[in-house]
Amino acid sequence: MTEVVLGKNQYGKAQNHVVRIHRDTDRHVIRDLVVTSQLRGDFEAVHTEGDNGHCVPTDTQKNTVFAFAQKYGITSPEELLLKLSEHFTTEFEWVTGGRWAADEHAWDRINDSDHCFVQNKQEVRTAVLVTDGEQQTVISGFKDLTILKSTESGFEGYPKDKYTTLPETTDRIMSTDVATRWRYNTTDVDYDAVYADVKKIILEKFTDHYSRALQETLYLMGKAVIEAHPEIDEIRFSCPNKHHFVYDLSFCDIENPGETHYAADRPFGLIEATVQRKGAPEAEAAWAGITGFC
Amino acid sequence: MTEVVLGKNQYGKAQNHVVRIHRDTDRHVIRDLVVTSQLRGDFEAVHTEGDNGHCVPTDTQKNTVFAFAQKYGITSPEELLLKLSEHFTTEFEWVTGGRWAADEHAWDRINDSDHCFVQNKQEVRTAVLVTDGEQQTVISGFKDLTILKSTESGFEGYPKDKYTTLPETTDRIMSTDVATRWRYNTTDVDYDAVYADVKKIILEKFTDHYSRALQETLYLMGKAVIEAHPEIDEIRFSCPNKHHFVYDLSFCDIENPGETHYAADRPFGLIEATVQRKGAPEAEAAWAGITGFC
Amino acid sequence: MTEVVLGKNQYGKAQNHVVRIHRDTDRHVIRDLVVTSQLRGDFEAVHTEGDNGHCVPTDTQKNTVFAFAQKYGITSPEELLLKLSEHFTTEFEWVTGGRWAADEHAWDRINDSDHCFVQNKQEVRTAVLVTDGEQQTVISGFKDLTILKSTESGFEGYPKDKYTTLPETTDRIMSTDVATRWRYNTTDVDYDAVYADVKKIILEKFTDHYSRALQETLYLMGKAVIEAHPEIDEIRFSCPNKHHFVYDLSFCDIENPGETHYAADRPFGLIEATVQRKGAPEAEAAWAGITGFC
Amino acid sequence: MTEVVLGKNQYGKAQNHVVRIHRDTDRHVIRDLVVTSQLRGDFEAVHTEGDNGHCVPTDTQKNTVFAFAQKYGITSPEELLLKLSEHFTTEFEWVTGGRWAADEHAWDRINDSDHCFVQNKQEVRTAVLVTDGEQQTVISGFKDLTILKSTESGFEGYPKDKYTTLPETTDRIMSTDVATRWRYNTTDVDYDAVYADVKKIILEKFTDHYSRALQETLYLMGKAVIEAHPEIDEIRFSCPNKHHFVYDLSFCDIENPGETHYAADRPFGLIEATVQRKGAPEAEAAWAGITGFC
Repeated sequence: MTEVVLGKNQYGKAQNHVVRIHRDTDRHVIRDLVVTSQLRGDFEAVHTEGDNGHCVPTDTQKNTVFAFAQKYGITSPEELLLKLSEHFTTEFEWVTGGRWAADEHAWDRINDSDHCFVQNKQEVRTAVLVTDGEQQTVISGFKDLTILKSTESGFEGYPKDKYTTLPETTDRIMSTDVATRWRYNTTDVDYDAVYADVKKIILEKFTDHYSRALQETLYLMGKAVIEAHPEIDEIRFSCPNKHHFVYDLSFCDIENPGETHYAADRPFGLIEATVQRKGAPEAEAAWAGITGFC
Repeated sequence: MTEVVLGKNQYGKAQNHVVRIHRDTDRHVIRDLVVTSQLRGDFEAVHTEGDNGHCVPTDTQKNTVFAFAQKYGITSPEELLLKLSEHFTTEFEWVTGGRWAADEHAWDRINDSDHCFVQNKQEVRTAVLVTDGEQQTVISGFKDLTILKSTESGFEGYPKDKYTTLPETTDRIMSTDVATRWRYNTTDVDYDAVYADVKKIILEKFTDHYSRALQETLYLMGKAVIEAHPEIDEIRFSCPNKHHFVYDLSFCDIENPGETHYAADRPFGLIEATVQRKGAPEAEAAWAGITGFC
Repeated sequence: MTEVVLGKNQYGKAQNHVVRIHRDTDRHVIRDLVVTSQLRGDFEAVHTEGDNGHCVPTDTQKNTVFAFAQKYGITSPEELLLKLSEHFTTEFEWVTGGRWAADEHAWDRINDSDHCFVQNKQEVRTAVLVTDGEQQTVISGFKDLTILKSTESGFEGYPKDKYTTLPETTDRIMSTDVATRWRYNTTDVDYDAVYADVKKIILEKFTDHYSRALQETLYLMGKAVIEAHPEIDEIRFSCPNKHHFVYDLSFCDIENPGETHYAADRPFGLIEATVQRKGAPEAEAAWAGITGFC
Repeated sequence: MTEVVLGKNQYGKAQNHVVRIHRDTDRHVIRDLVVTSQLRGDFEAVHTEGDNGHCVPTDTQKNTVFAFAQKYGITSPEELLLKLSEHFTTEFEWVTGGRWAADEHAWDRINDSDHCFVQNKQEVRTAVLVTDGEQQTVISGFKDLTILKSTESGFEGYPKDKYTTLPETTDRIMSTDVATRWRYNTTDVDYDAVYADVKKIILEKFTDHYSRALQETLYLMGKAVIEAHPEIDEIRFSCPNKHHFVYDLSFCDIENPGETHYAADRPFGLIEATVQRKGAPEAEAAWAGITGFC
């Protein structure tokens, strides 16, 4: 007779799009977040018996997200997530943890206006908080930062087998959409300031070397972040190698010395790597459910 | 006996993603375009008899796009489209016109680097050229410029019927993704310069008035563009009214004076309007196939 | 002094996602529509003066869509649009016309259940009604019907120039996502029945011939529809040629006789054609704003 | 002095879209897969020193995917992935494992044609193989199977707090997009047959009970799969609760007894659960990188 048991589970309300205007003065401040709340704990009965006695409605989670955005304001995505986590794990004794996440879209002022903004879509900021009993892990990051270098990149010296047709090169376009996540070893962080600095480091690192492989560049970025930020123990990257193929125009006798490229969509290279502070404790469980990294 | 005839038709290669690096000096310049080429003319036989004698392959159109990007460089999307149009209508006598279009993504320099760039996703630039015999119509524009004002917008004084439940307001968030297209009355244009100025005008206009309806704001934007640019006869807008609903928190006794909003996805308002230079000739046919305007 | 005037305009509420369950008996019937309502008429003052006296709120249009779905049920998308048009042009004297559109997603019963359904995503049904005073034009259609033939397609006999590199072939994969729209010459139509039959004809036509060009196949499809349906005066297609390239494996000495293909995303061929009943009146204005056709 | 080390990493070529026609007889068979190949092993030097000596090009991985599709045919996604894994771990001694994944799109015959097909988009089949030395874990599944029941679903008896506003109900629409993944305890499986049967069980289970919560329904689905398939040790679900709100039409005196609904996009409930065979060994690492489950 087969015996079946409930395994890992979580549930909640995904993608609450909350736009909070701080209008204490005429110079408004806007925070634009898409927040997901998911609870973990003793939810056995709702699965196995349809007993909702522990099942805090996802609708209640939604209401709480908006209520907290108003009650506390939004100083950073991470701080809102920490407040939500504390609330749910305190309010309901069978809620022992959960996962709270937010994407943030940035807005720039139009001509330094007090209340008119244009969305800055350069990248999307991400934040995840995983709570497991007393343990809280904050993983911040961003995605979709699209960068390109038009030279100072090559790829040589790789192994060849019967399926290899790629020619070596010492001058190619290298382009990627940076998706990165870094894990803090504390919750006592100036999240907005660190965010700005990590992004700055990653952009700077991209420019300062001849890249022999996207792997090398990602490692250099990660190393610089870890070295500059003692509050970060680990940073991961999941980055496409967005191929730009030099278009062969020899058929019509036009020279093309690395100038006109066909930018391909699929397939693409996909490079994923972790850079860690040596000796720092692992926190593998907190990474579950984050797209695109092993 | 039913008689059937071929009506309007065009064909070509869509979405050629060409990335052109101008590397004449160490300070590289990048133009990143997605180009579509479609031919019109005498293509009756390929439809009715499967006779490809006139059917310039879409693959040839693709090759030509990349060859011209290399041969002439890309000074603006519009100028590349004009060169393509001239080529196809000259090279093949049965090609009497066509439609050429391009979307352009902008790149900013990272820390003023010569060859490292970060994509600026604020908006997507668009260009369309419609050629019909001797007649050439250039329609430029952009899409996905997301703007928001956190006050100085209202909506009052509208008609009510039995299906009306909307309350009037004198203070709301107004937000839209600007999609706009403007039609030139000449092809002798400094396309990049005019583009930059039209965008500047639209952003400025957004900030300078209390908006009584999105229609009013779009009209003011369009009017300012027409007044400033004698080479533009007409400008159209297709703009969602992206609703931001004040989240009612009275159930939990939290006041919410226009601060915390739920940003809805669908449905959305959709406002489409044309502003024209009085007395200028129409060019309705050139607008066919442009999404989102009557 | 520049004089500026308001040109064509329309506005309304887009993408009202209404799911109507007909539960008069235990055997439920579901219609799942995304409806857009846009009004045309005398809306000058809202644009030029911010006077909302004529500006029927888009919120009211939304309420009306849902109210009518309930009041009248949904017998077909086209019939709901006709009711909406009649209502707005009757209720508000300055509304002289408009554009109403719907996308419909189909649901199949699971194991012939009375109330459990699985969505059938084979294609999306589309409907547009354009009203201009007494004139009403209904354009029905569908999009995203993805079809492929693995042989019985070729491309030969086309003109060559210096930019041509494409080899001729008599055996290739042909694949497209059919987007088609047909215009009725009457509003007295059994819309569901005609829809089903047009789709059937298009699928059948795809299978019954060696295709010398996608243009030929589209023309044959259109011809068959016009011949079978006297209530249809015109049918248009906008269809990508989704390239499937035979993967050249000669580098590793594996023969590939048209079996293993790389399916490309971009660029793609784009074939757009109209087939008309000879002598039928044109209705060009009704096609404005429909994506993807000249 | 900060010491930095390389952590987990993998790389390869993502989204190779391979369409394999089996044309040994006139009755063609089509398999349409999007394959991702990622290698793991000793790749330290490419990250830390830019030494590509171990860095099998992603381009070579692409070539191999297409070569194997031709050489071996595609009998199931899982079997292709197993062949790829064996190849890379055998061919390159420093490759100790990896992750191979495929999405498959199904095609139906048009009118039982030998070579004409229409894509069946009901769901997307998924397959993942994770190899770690001698250990191979196959996780199969599907996503985007959209189902709905128009009655026989309710939600009552849940805890209330100050943020709860949701009314209880015994009759609502329940709808979800099923994303599910199941883990085999063997690689000796008739993958196509098991796939078809798991999908059948999930659809059947959806119809056979009054659902007191989506959690209950997912658990019942999972339990039935585990009981029917001894080769499956674990099945996970990540399913949105796609809210369909009864549209309140009391403002215009129209009764709406659960018939006309507004289908919301965001936010949505998100229910994620695992059902396991009691006593079966865990394989947590193999689940890393799968979107949407803890």
